[in-house]
Amino acid sequence: MAMIGGGPGAFIGPVHAMAARLDGKIALVAGAFSSDRERALAGGRGYGLPDDRIYTDWRELIAAEAARPDGAEFVAIVTPNHLHQPIAIAAMEAGLHVICDKPAATNLAGTLALHDAVSRTGRLYALTYTYTGYPMVRRARELVREGAIGTVRKVSAQYVQGWLADRAEEEGNKQAHWRTDPAQAGIGGCIGDIGVHAFNLAEFVSGLEVAEIMPDLSSVVGGRLLDDDCNVLLRFAGGQPGVLVASQICTGERNDLTLKVHGTTGTLTWNHENCGALRIDRADGRTETLRAGQGLAPGTRIPVGHPEGFIEAFANIYSDFADKLRGAAQTQCPIPGIAEGVRSMRFVERAVAGSRTRQGWVALTE
Amino acid sequence: MAMIGGGPGAFIGPVHAMAARLDGKIALVAGAFSSDRERALAGGRGYGLPDDRIYTDWRELIAAEAARPDGAEFVAIVTPNHLHQPIAIAAMEAGLHVICDKPAATNLAGTLALHDAVSRTGRLYALTYTYTGYPMVRRARELVREGAIGTVRKVSAQYVQGWLADRAEEEGNKQAHWRTDPAQAGIGGCIGDIGVHAFNLAEFVSGLEVAEIMPDLSSVVGGRLLDDDCNVLLRFAGGQPGVLVASQICTGERNDLTLKVHGTTGTLTWNHENCGALRIDRADGRTETLRAGQGLAPGTRIPVGHPEGFIEAFANIYSDFADKLRGAAQTQCPIPGIAEGVRSMRFVERAVAGSRTRQGWVALTE
Amino acid sequence: MAMIGGGPGAFIGPVHAMAARLDGKIALVAGAFSSDRERALAGGRGYGLPDDRIYTDWRELIAAEAARPDGAEFVAIVTPNHLHQPIAIAAMEAGLHVICDKPAATNLAGTLALHDAVSRTGRLYALTYTYTGYPMVRRARELVREGAIGTVRKVSAQYVQGWLADRAEEEGNKQAHWRTDPAQAGIGGCIGDIGVHAFNLAEFVSGLEVAEIMPDLSSVVGGRLLDDDCNVLLRFAGGQPGVLVASQICTGERNDLTLKVHGTTGTLTWNHENCGALRIDRADGRTETLRAGQGLAPGTRIPVGHPEGFIEAFANIYSDFADKLRGAAQTQCPIPGIAEGVRSMRFVERAVAGSRTRQGWVALTE
Amino acid sequence: MAMIGGGPGAFIGPVHAMAARLDGKIALVAGAFSSDRERALAGGRGYGLPDDRIYTDWRELIAAEAARPDGAEFVAIVTPNHLHQPIAIAAMEAGLHVICDKPAATNLAGTLALHDAVSRTGRLYALTYTYTGYPMVRRARELVREGAIGTVRKVSAQYVQGWLADRAEEEGNKQAHWRTDPAQAGIGGCIGDIGVHAFNLAEFVSGLEVAEIMPDLSSVVGGRLLDDDCNVLLRFAGGQPGVLVASQICTGERNDLTLKVHGTTGTLTWNHENCGALRIDRADGRTETLRAGQGLAPGTRIPVGHPEGFIEAFANIYSDFADKLRGAAQTQCPIPGIAEGVRSMRFVERAVAGSRTRQGWVALTE
Repeated sequence: MAMIGGGPGAFIGPVHAMAARLDGKIALVAGAFSSDRERALAGGRGYGLPDDRIYTDWRELIAAEAARPDGAEFVAIVTPNHLHQPIAIAAMEAGLHVICDKPAATNLAGTLALHDAVSRTGRLYALTYTYTGYPMVRRARELVREGAIGTVRKVSAQYVQGWLADRAEEEGNKQAHWRTDPAQAGIGGCIGDIGVHAFNLAEFVSGLEVAEIMPDLSSVVGGRLLDDDCNVLLRFAGGQPGVLVASQICTGERNDLTLKVHGTTGTLTWNHENCGALRIDRADGRTETLRAGQGLAPGTRIPVGHPEGFIEAFANIYSDFADKLRGAAQTQCPIPGIAEGVRSMRFVERAVAGSRTRQGWVALTE
Repeated sequence: MAMIGGGPGAFIGPVHAMAARLDGKIALVAGAFSSDRERALAGGRGYGLPDDRIYTDWRELIAAEAARPDGAEFVAIVTPNHLHQPIAIAAMEAGLHVICDKPAATNLAGTLALHDAVSRTGRLYALTYTYTGYPMVRRARELVREGAIGTVRKVSAQYVQGWLADRAEEEGNKQAHWRTDPAQAGIGGCIGDIGVHAFNLAEFVSGLEVAEIMPDLSSVVGGRLLDDDCNVLLRFAGGQPGVLVASQICTGERNDLTLKVHGTTGTLTWNHENCGALRIDRADGRTETLRAGQGLAPGTRIPVGHPEGFIEAFANIYSDFADKLRGAAQTQCPIPGIAEGVRSMRFVERAVAGSRTRQGWVALTE
Repeated sequence: MAMIGGGPGAFIGPVHAMAARLDGKIALVAGAFSSDRERALAGGRGYGLPDDRIYTDWRELIAAEAARPDGAEFVAIVTPNHLHQPIAIAAMEAGLHVICDKPAATNLAGTLALHDAVSRTGRLYALTYTYTGYPMVRRARELVREGAIGTVRKVSAQYVQGWLADRAEEEGNKQAHWRTDPAQAGIGGCIGDIGVHAFNLAEFVSGLEVAEIMPDLSSVVGGRLLDDDCNVLLRFAGGQPGVLVASQICTGERNDLTLKVHGTTGTLTWNHENCGALRIDRADGRTETLRAGQGLAPGTRIPVGHPEGFIEAFANIYSDFADKLRGAAQTQCPIPGIAEGVRSMRFVERAVAGSRTRQGWVALTE
Repeated sequence: MAMIGGGPGAFIGPVHAMAARLDGKIALVAGAFSSDRERALAGGRGYGLPDDRIYTDWRELIAAEAARPDGAEFVAIVTPNHLHQPIAIAAMEAGLHVICDKPAATNLAGTLALHDAVSRTGRLYALTYTYTGYPMVRRARELVREGAIGTVRKVSAQYVQGWLADRAEEEGNKQAHWRTDPAQAGIGGCIGDIGVHAFNLAEFVSGLEVAEIMPDLSSVVGGRLLDDDCNVLLRFAGGQPGVLVASQICTGERNDLTLKVHGTTGTLTWNHENCGALRIDRADGRTETLRAGQGLAPGTRIPVGHPEGFIEAFANIYSDFADKLRGAAQTQCPIPGIAEGVRSMRFVERAVAGSRTRQGWVALTE
């Protein structure tokens, strides 16, 4: 694979690299880590790349790698948001497959254009909705499908962080800077950065689609142009109620993504801070806690009692992607792709618009 | 005190009795436990009352006890909801003080009439918003006032149960029966039964008032006339966002009331299932857990490490009420009374109405 | 009942009073709270006693109450340890029943003499091994008996506190003062104060008897005459291994009593800080958590999800005692009595002796 | 690196491979995965090795790789225990460095011989005491050194599993088979397999050395030749008491390693199932929970709130080893090596012997 973005100081680039490497199925062979030659070289050499596979321009990388007989089969896109879509389209048009950090694009129109490009080129396109890579999230999805909690009646998803509780964007925090800048992040702040993970997870595990939303987005921290706190009422296609909360101003919260699926015979709870467990509350007041472990949950590498985490979850998506590239008829779990990208972006746009008008419910259908 | 309601099979009557008894400040001297003579006698004798202080009619109890020189000073009302208000007014007009299970009345007009009666008679009137009796809830309120988490920016309150996930009202569950019957419970189901506890707690601890709500109430279990699931977006008077979730159809949930108050320097969390602890998450990723114990939290009776619970919390309200009756200039904490009753009932009525129209936000001001 | 001890500043006296009062089965009618007349009166009036039932001498109380037709049926002994046994014997010889805070006496000989007195007088004698009053401890005992975890193979009990981590006895802490003074506490410090609770709990729940011990007791805090830290290897009568840890110098620990019973098909865990839950770990990596609640665990007063605690557990022992006094053929659970007192005191004496010689294992048989 | 052992079906071999690969500092270039040619090839090709670097005999691997100019710099030894020492000595004598799964050898004499070989050859020798690789274990060690809990007074370490609660060794479980066979595992069963981890962790974090032990080892499951349950009293060099519990027959326990270090001003707790947190209990009843995250704990790769686990902890040891090989003057944390091997093996031998004689305390000094 070739990586685009993810130079020194980046958060998600190195995670992609570790995730790709973990299972020994994928080799990083090229990269465009920065438009600055020195930084690009530093980044690439850090990954052990020869200088002739280190590029300063992603267009150049795509052209060169697509032309080489031993070139990268796919690109991993880990740039700021606004470049995701143009790079993905260019790579696919050059014949390369794509694995891209979310979002697919910065608006719905761009995402739909990308959807077309995926269809047209027939290339594999994966979006790293990381949380779908967690073994106990996958197990939760299986359990709901198997009827382990009966019929789903309500879904709650909450994703809260505190790292934007202060004006980190003005204190040299590069991550905060681009995420709060509409030009780089798109129209959604918190809703686009983490709200979509909660949205995707709710649909992924419950098997239901959100039909209507009643959003309330705020910029709690003064002077911020994008939302940093989002509270959204949900109605699923069958009329089931739900709640989605996403916030980046909850001081002291770290990265707490919690999903609750309430069924007729039990309530299923998954929480990121305790990612190896899955809890089912039963009507008789009893709680069952299931645990990840080889043979116990899909995508677990080691025996029960040995914690795995974020890098391993990420690696599961890479691993599935690699299997698919090599022709696997079926991966362990559907790889999140452009369809999820479209749904998420529609959610973001409607949430932003609906929150402005404050006129009640907004449909999420096309 | 004299108790009205709370005969054999009741849940909350015996809790009131234990709470009143715990600290040795209050004696139960009379009661009207049932209109059926046998049941009334059984109830009263169970409490060790002589037969001449056991009544079958609450009007009779009020008249007789008010007339006796050694009569009860106050009545504790633990009947189904629709009787709370008429009994309270009659008792106060007869010169008795009142401590009443919530709600104050079954609608706003009735609650306002009761408010007038309290003013007119000058009697003490307390509503058992039990959760305000928990030491760590009181400590949370103090901490917010002392600025321990900075300025409050967001408040979330969630109160979920699962005991109405099935049609318990048709299976001989007396509690379920009257709570799902509009004639006895009023216009609010879950919102009035437990939603108001979450509402009261959010305001009590944060010190903020809810100004606007965007409610979504459902009757998830088929055939039910009142709501059994409530999801409500909040905006407080200063514009702070919030979320209130109350549900009685979350299978397997027991009685999980969780409050989160997010401030500029910390997030404070209290959870009923772990009622002796209070958690503060700090911006540096550190969590502080404070614990109840004599000298550590108001209203704690025994040393840290010795759990206290629901009965003790309830007893704190009775204890404060007794102190006030005996002329205490100040109780440990404001006793919840008719003002809280009015706010809660307005919340219930506006939530029910707003959920029906689905037209967006509803003001909570007069 | 009449209370002996428990004047102003006491910890356990008021707990006995609340426990006795909670269920409305027992009335406090007399007391000897202090040998100082002013303190005794203050104590008694605080409990609402008339002055003629407030005594300054326990001998006087026993004589007077035994003589009155309306005298107390039983005495509750909550004095420092060294008075437990003489008061108990005198009370029983005067025809009164006894409920006594542990220990029964300060040494084995005294405990055996008391055992004789109980047999001789035929009076009821209960020792408040409080933890046996917790609903989930009682449920645990039932579960082990029912075979819910198969055959028991190992038992671990741990009771740790931190309140003696400093020399509290020299800083005016009355509780610390008598507990660290051999003249008042007996030969055991921590082992006698809390080690015996862990010992009693291990036998009570597992149904096994400890046959041999290998004790290691220390006085970790300099200058202390009695042990404040105890680590003891156990072998039960069937050869099963076990561990008992008790300490009062574990800084920051509050009152953490944890019991683990390992069976062939599951491990059962109860922890005091989460006293309403009972955890069973199964061989497949699944954990089941059971919860207290009316109908779910013996001795619970309110529905699941409403926490009960230490006072309620204590009250269960008083309630069982009252039932037994009134002729109940069977109480909910065996009331801990003089047999438990003898076993515990033998454990204390052998642990203290064995720890001094450091020669290996010590039998616990007669 | 070249791997010896770890063919198809192995647990720890693949973990070594993932750990070595994660940070991109180390490449697997050769391996002897099995003495069976087919299995060896399957293993090696699975790792992407060319056939000429796949060996069936570890002696052959050492000779060939030491001879090649591009040969492996070091070997990773992941065979059953009895081969660890001979392979390590042979590799070092051939000039290769060694990273070895624990134990260093199957008895003390062999471990001391290995110690000599390390000194003689001057090669780097690391033992994968994995738990020392966890960021919060490393942080705990730092905190103790910095005086964050005052002077250490007591240490407890507990490592419990349930996977040998049944006779798994007779049901085709390869891991169980060799671990319960004295010929392959050595004289220690549970004590050597996991007891040494608890022992190593206690010394690593507390900075104290165990001076005396009072061991009680059992074979709880019938017919087993080696111990499967170990309870050991400890005395550290300064007289501090301690307890070490290790067991593989605690049904339902997964892999629960818990360390408690009690100091004069706080108690520090780390638990493997919640490996990213570190808890400090303070004398005022307050608990502080610290969390792993980049910049917050040594060896963390990603921001707080993103769980890392066993593979990452393992990788920290590999990463430190790689840094040392490349001449780093100082690694993040001392790499566990032959000194730890010697101490652990002495602990195992004395525990086994002392448990047989049952004569009391056994010194752990040379």
